[in-house]
Amino acid sequence: MGKSGVPNNDEFYMKIALRLAKKGLGFVNPNPPVGAVIVKDGNIIGRGYHTRFGALHAEREALLDAKKKGVDVSGATMYVTLEPCDHYGKTSPCTNAIIESGIKRVVIAARDPNPVSGDGIKKLLKNGIEVKVGVLEDEAKEVAKFFFKYVTTGLPYVTLKYASTLDGKIADKIGSSKWITQELRKEVHKLRSIHKAVLVGAETVLKDNPILNVRLPKMKFKNPDVVVLDENGRVLKKVIADIDKFELFNPNYDRRVIIFSSNQCQNIEFPEYVKVKTPENLSVENILKELAKEGIDSLLIEGGASVFSQFLPYADEVYGFYATKVFGKGKSIFEHLEIPVEESEIPFEIQNLKISKNMKELMVVMRRCSQGLFSTYVKDTSMVRG
Amino acid sequence: MGKSGVPNNDEFYMKIALRLAKKGLGFVNPNPPVGAVIVKDGNIIGRGYHTRFGALHAEREALLDAKKKGVDVSGATMYVTLEPCDHYGKTSPCTNAIIESGIKRVVIAARDPNPVSGDGIKKLLKNGIEVKVGVLEDEAKEVAKFFFKYVTTGLPYVTLKYASTLDGKIADKIGSSKWITQELRKEVHKLRSIHKAVLVGAETVLKDNPILNVRLPKMKFKNPDVVVLDENGRVLKKVIADIDKFELFNPNYDRRVIIFSSNQCQNIEFPEYVKVKTPENLSVENILKELAKEGIDSLLIEGGASVFSQFLPYADEVYGFYATKVFGKGKSIFEHLEIPVEESEIPFEIQNLKISKNMKELMVVMRRCSQGLFSTYVKDTSMVRG
Repeated sequence: MGKSGVPNNDEFYMKIALRLAKKGLGFVNPNPPVGAVIVKDGNIIGRGYHTRFGALHAEREALLDAKKKGVDVSGATMYVTLEPCDHYGKTSPCTNAIIESGIKRVVIAARDPNPVSGDGIKKLLKNGIEVKVGVLEDEAKEVAKFFFKYVTTGLPYVTLKYASTLDGKIADKIGSSKWITQELRKEVHKLRSIHKAVLVGAETVLKDNPILNVRLPKMKFKNPDVVVLDENGRVLKKVIADIDKFELFNPNYDRRVIIFSSNQCQNIEFPEYVKVKTPENLSVENILKELAKEGIDSLLIEGGASVFSQFLPYADEVYGFYATKVFGKGKSIFEHLEIPVEESEIPFEIQNLKISKNMKELMVVMRRCSQGLFSTYVKDTSMVRG
Repeated sequence: MGKSGVPNNDEFYMKIALRLAKKGLGFVNPNPPVGAVIVKDGNIIGRGYHTRFGALHAEREALLDAKKKGVDVSGATMYVTLEPCDHYGKTSPCTNAIIESGIKRVVIAARDPNPVSGDGIKKLLKNGIEVKVGVLEDEAKEVAKFFFKYVTTGLPYVTLKYASTLDGKIADKIGSSKWITQELRKEVHKLRSIHKAVLVGAETVLKDNPILNVRLPKMKFKNPDVVVLDENGRVLKKVIADIDKFELFNPNYDRRVIIFSSNQCQNIEFPEYVKVKTPENLSVENILKELAKEGIDSLLIEGGASVFSQFLPYADEVYGFYATKVFGKGKSIFEHLEIPVEESEIPFEIQNLKISKNMKELMVVMRRCSQGLFSTYVKDTSMVRG
């Protein structure tokens, strides 16, 4: 027992580290969110987390915090949600900082799946530091799920989100879906705030002129980049004619806009934050690869119907928002899917349910079955934490 | 405190009475399920419930139970989930039996909404018995919801049940929906076991040749009556040609089969358990009224698509079973509904959610908003407990 009377329990402190890690969600991509806590004699003497891409790693933040407080960390235990890196990047390896500090024990939730990060655990052990691995490992992998998929497959984590009526309609005949759910819209904005990018089809841009920013009162967040699938160049054509007409291209939202198109338009000058990509192959797989190269570790698919059908087979998670409404006739969510009946079962498990306050809306979260979620991914070592 | 050390708490004993009441579900219709418990010196000395239509009321069962045990109920308290009747039916009023027994206190969950039952509370008070009303009233109304709607409106309680894919498809192109959900099928059989009747359209009978019985291993139940909507007489024609072809008409299931048709067929002789009704008006409202006259207090709508659309506006409860499947193309649940978009919001609240063990299926229970659920019903005093 520590002085404070709190049990000196590894899980207890790891939970605090995980809570810190989550603060980095949406700011650190494509790095993982990581949290760290330094404990001595049962007291927390340092806290830190990776705050944004390019900033200090969590371990160094925690050490800095302790230093600022003027406390000596020698002999202390560090709890960190991901294996410390042993890699020379913008700074020297975190392992070095830990070893130099005099910390004698390091508790790690999950191993870093990225071989480029080096073998931090081995380095610590070699330097006489006691290491324990696997405390709240599943929780840590959950918090850093974008990173785990990204570094092990070279593809972004794909989340598909739709809002539909009970009978699976996403829109009436005029194609507007904005107003199907109301209270649970906040969940959509939370999703946007943690993903590196949001993807929509040309149809959605032309019909709805969406902003696709994050609208969460009283919260700090970063707007995700926007990706537009514009196969036939319909959006490009209109943007070239009058870019100011489109909310997406408003520079105030401080984000990149990436347009995939088959149209060549090398002569057109776009603002710096707009990038037009014209790969030969506009398959979903190739688009995902191209986005990974842009540092996009997580992608939220926001429709419309044709885009939903294209991306469903690549989704890691699906958020279905159902309103207690019935359209009868109208546009169906996956109406562009052409699948044989025997393949209609999607490999997803229901993970989470939420009902709106007024009990009129339902959120169903579905996750690709965990069996083999990460294990089937092919290793790709081209990505390094920055 | 009673001898047993259990707190002498009215809610505690009423809960036991409610649990007893539920045992009558599916057997007592169109009577309410009612439970009763007699308590003296903190000990339960009598238990009873209304076991089936035509049998003793719960109060008399509890008194009989005490008598069989040879205990004296004078001075005891009776807990009963519904106001005792003061009506001469097959037996003399329950109030008389209570008064004669020497019971000195009666705790009632809910008042009987049926004026024909007489004012039991007044009669008890007049005879010097202490009466408390309203203990777990909502729970008691919930257990007897079929009865409450039936006697206050003269219409059966209508439950609509569908099984669909995530995109609202109830069937592929050949029209079969049997296999959409698997694990949660048990819930459907539970629903069947408590409803007085199940209703299907002609299309379902002709295409699926369903049994529509209850299949619950190791449980006592009664098969519901079956109602077939056969506007054009398509089923009738086939039944007349070869009744043995249809599972529905198998006499082993020990139930009535009621067919609504516009076809006159007075000359045909059907087995005794088959009733053909040919009212001039085949509107949903009229069908419900006709069924109420047959003693049907609760009706489970089991489809197909056309029937779902017809009955949705009359449903008190909707059970949506969703499987983590996607058909893309196919038959949509409410595809026959023709409603303006502004009326697409159905006046239902999500009340209950259940996920299957394998996390592949979701049950959403929706209830007509409670505001005015019973208060807007028009009183109809033509129905009396038997």
